[in-house]
Amino acid sequence: MKRRDFVFFTGLSVFAGRALAQGKPGKQRVVIQVSDNDPAKWALALSNARNVQTDLGKENVEIEIVAYGPGLAMMKAESPVAGRLAAALDANVGLIACENTMQNTKIEKGDIYGGVKFVRAGVTHIMKRQGEGWAYLRP
Amino acid sequence: MKRRDFVFFTGLSVFAGRALAQGKPGKQRVVIQVSDNDPAKWALALSNARNVQTDLGKENVEIEIVAYGPGLAMMKAESPVAGRLAAALDANVGLIACENTMQNTKIEKGDIYGGVKFVRAGVTHIMKRQGEGWAYLRP
Amino acid sequence: MKRRDFVFFTGLSVFAGRALAQGKPGKQRVVIQVSDNDPAKWALALSNARNVQTDLGKENVEIEIVAYGPGLAMMKAESPVAGRLAAALDANVGLIACENTMQNTKIEKGDIYGGVKFVRAGVTHIMKRQGEGWAYLRP
Repeated sequence: MKRRDFVFFTGLSVFAGRALAQGKPGKQRVVIQVSDNDPAKWALALSNARNVQTDLGKENVEIEIVAYGPGLAMMKAESPVAGRLAAALDANVGLIACENTMQNTKIEKGDIYGGVKFVRAGVTHIMKRQGEGWAYLRP
Repeated sequence: MKRRDFVFFTGLSVFAGRALAQGKPGKQRVVIQVSDNDPAKWALALSNARNVQTDLGKENVEIEIVAYGPGLAMMKAESPVAGRLAAALDANVGLIACENTMQNTKIEKGDIYGGVKFVRAGVTHIMKRQGEGWAYLRP
Repeated sequence: MKRRDFVFFTGLSVFAGRALAQGKPGKQRVVIQVSDNDPAKWALALSNARNVQTDLGKENVEIEIVAYGPGLAMMKAESPVAGRLAAALDANVGLIACENTMQNTKIEKGDIYGGVKFVRAGVTHIMKRQGEGWAYLRP
């Protein structure tokens, strides 16, 4: 590879990498963590998501709420914030439950609110999102 | 645009973008979130800011403390940590209150400690700072 | 410096900087913060570390748990989670205590669990790790 080709390759790959990490230009992304067994925190996480959508415009932002550990109960069908989970899904907020936690606490997929998605490990998913350039929020 | 020009443009824009995100060379930046209604957490956030300045040198670091949700009360004129807010402002720590929270809880600007600044949504401001390359700390 | 040399230098330095920040290709890194005086949180932090190793493969991830402020007690020799500290060290999870906190609370190095490492300021270490591209987790 000639020197000029190397420059081209390097410049381009950095450029492509950053574009990939940031998604569409102007689209902001945030992953919100819920790991407390505290309905007030669950309500705050949902309000945070709604406020971000209001402030930036729903179409300009991608939001996921990831519940794991003691926070998983937020995503149960019988959750005290179940009504607000419905509203969040309607507003295109991704709701995600941790399968590791479910396994450790004998919670089945049927116990989880409809529309909630699953990841093997909530913590690893949060790391992955940060690596992709998403902001991280822990209310 | 010729290939060499494209490389020049790409390389330069990445370079410029990174420099912009990182501020002056050597200048580190951190946004500290306060979202708990817990004076012990408020004191911890203020101690964290002071320790960072001591450890890195006050002139080498830029710090903002953003209070929102149940944490907003930290920034009120009648806050139990008001004396320490004064010291933080003297030390060039930015103190920021969330107007969304103020509106939802009927708190006026006149209720907030003098010198505290305002953003429309605390959460969006924290996302913006992370996107600009600031570290994020949630004590 | 000729224009082409400048491009070469810029492209290369960005490339080198990113490689440095990301460590070995494929190696993921996360710094986990413990700042609550709450043994349930300490257990959660240790479980998070273990789950990340299980999910990604122990050899593909680098993990540090940084305890400071009211969270420092997690790292004491007499900590209620001392047995799990041993297991974490065996699994190559870095355990780190904040010397600032130790100084302020009159805790000596001899009071800390063997194998735990020390940094001058836990908060600054967490900022540094984020600047190096590590994910940040606050359980």
